[in-house]
Amino acid sequence: MKPADNSFSCTPSAAARLARGLAPALMVLAVSLPTYAATPKPADKTPPPPYKSFGEIVAASPAEAWRAPDPENIIYMDLPTGRVVIELAPHMAPATVANIRTLIREKYFDGMAIVRSQDNYVVQWGDPVDKTPPKPLGSAKATLSPEWQRSMTPAEWKSMGFVPLPDRDGYAKEVGFWRGFHAGRDAASRTAWLSHCYGTVGVGRGSAADSGSGASLYVVTGHAPRHLDRNITVVGRVLQGMPLLSVLPRGTKPLGFYATPEEMLPLKSFRLEADVPAADRTAMEVFRTESPEFKRGVEALRNRGGDWFKRPAGHVELCNVPIPARATRVER
Amino acid sequence: MKPADNSFSCTPSAAARLARGLAPALMVLAVSLPTYAATPKPADKTPPPPYKSFGEIVAASPAEAWRAPDPENIIYMDLPTGRVVIELAPHMAPATVANIRTLIREKYFDGMAIVRSQDNYVVQWGDPVDKTPPKPLGSAKATLSPEWQRSMTPAEWKSMGFVPLPDRDGYAKEVGFWRGFHAGRDAASRTAWLSHCYGTVGVGRGSAADSGSGASLYVVTGHAPRHLDRNITVVGRVLQGMPLLSVLPRGTKPLGFYATPEEMLPLKSFRLEADVPAADRTAMEVFRTESPEFKRGVEALRNRGGDWFKRPAGHVELCNVPIPARATRVER
Repeated sequence: MKPADNSFSCTPSAAARLARGLAPALMVLAVSLPTYAATPKPADKTPPPPYKSFGEIVAASPAEAWRAPDPENIIYMDLPTGRVVIELAPHMAPATVANIRTLIREKYFDGMAIVRSQDNYVVQWGDPVDKTPPKPLGSAKATLSPEWQRSMTPAEWKSMGFVPLPDRDGYAKEVGFWRGFHAGRDAASRTAWLSHCYGTVGVGRGSAADSGSGASLYVVTGHAPRHLDRNITVVGRVLQGMPLLSVLPRGTKPLGFYATPEEMLPLKSFRLEADVPAADRTAMEVFRTESPEFKRGVEALRNRGGDWFKRPAGHVELCNVPIPARATRVER
Repeated sequence: MKPADNSFSCTPSAAARLARGLAPALMVLAVSLPTYAATPKPADKTPPPPYKSFGEIVAASPAEAWRAPDPENIIYMDLPTGRVVIELAPHMAPATVANIRTLIREKYFDGMAIVRSQDNYVVQWGDPVDKTPPKPLGSAKATLSPEWQRSMTPAEWKSMGFVPLPDRDGYAKEVGFWRGFHAGRDAASRTAWLSHCYGTVGVGRGSAADSGSGASLYVVTGHAPRHLDRNITVVGRVLQGMPLLSVLPRGTKPLGFYATPEEMLPLKSFRLEADVPAADRTAMEVFRTESPEFKRGVEALRNRGGDWFKRPAGHVELCNVPIPARATRVER
């Protein structure tokens, strides 16, 4: 999820290396070279500025375009294969986030594992053992009122920090970015919610609306299942480590559940960054979706230039906008 | 991609097994139980028919709802891990499909490998060795006029067999299904094209529009990169075997290319079904997108019922509609 890993961007030097180094038979998809300049209009002798890709705009952005998330909102899910970093969204789901913090601090997640990997859908983790009664939740709540969307007062609505996309969307009246997360909203009812995009983290539940406690969480690993929006509580998104989850072998039981505990990848630890010693922190920074640079980047995605693209879409779908994050220190 | 594997469907027996067998802490996402019945309207004493999910509708469909693709349009990509089955779309890209058939039959793909796996984007295969000159293409063409969209006569337009979705889309004036493939079209210009969804197969190219020969192909393994639509030639889609591709470790070079040939999964063989002995055929069937059952299935996706969903979307995005395929015999 760091700019350099981004599917849709490529630094100038990387693009140049690829252009030089690849046999024609390999070919390159979606490389945006930085040398593009459109034909100047006859009435205007000044050529337009060269096209800059989303990745180039992000890479050239000042320090103020980045924010350091609150360590109370960052989860480290350490797997045998590496670290997944999740940012929680208490502005969306305050009670559920508080419950998850309680579960974490009372060691509920000790012994938990990845129990499900369904192709083009989700990876989910929780208790690897199907036992009755289930592992106690300690002082955390077993049921919670749904936090599928937030209703706001006029004052809250005005100051909510939503950055709308100009593009139409089929699942929501309006879509955009709500303090660093993909989101939808509806002005008539003054409600907003987080959307299911690649990397979105939500709370598994049963058929009862209040049955999601946070004891089992999922992350979207396929095409955005936007029909889940406003049907389940979204609590955050993965900032780093998606490839550790997306490549997990698909489970053979219905819905991609693993058939045996042996197939399940155990969680080494599941901690809040606030509880991790400084020396073991990843120290992520997230690109500010309220920044002018993000807005410029979105425009670059809406109308891709460079040598490769011949027909800019004039549009970008919500989940095709990455929200960059970067680690500011090398993990040990 | 078979109904039973589908992300968005679940047979009644599977749903019941899950509901019985799972500890509450695991919970289940998106299970549609078959017992749902909405509250009858006061004016109408007849309760509406129980909700049937997309998967249930497909499973209950008659043989006429399925078609057996032409063996000239089916590719078997046999990997050390199993078989990927691709259906080609000569109605979309006749010259490119013909070129790919030539490459296959002249053994161009012998010795080829998966050279790229980029998270949330594509897997691509081609020549694992970056050599100059590249492997000769035999009698296949090295350059081809782009087949990014098709322009039609009024008569062709009328008989094209396009089944539109009622839902709005940001990337195309109209979207739907064109003879078994996700597609967009524009009535004003009488043009149609195949869309990039999960599992779509396209032809890698360089910056030159005519540089895609079919010698290197990619498949979408992440959120639909619809901005590629009409910028590159789409030749088909994967009918079976996506999980063999989607779990491949992500390459460490820019754009997800593998750093060394040793990391690349070799293609055991890459053949047209027409050239494979009957005993080794997978014999796929594909659900007819022109069938009334498909239309009913799409409606079930637009307004999901059952016990789990509390707020039907009233909408389905093009790439969230699966086109079912099934193997009619067990592979040896």
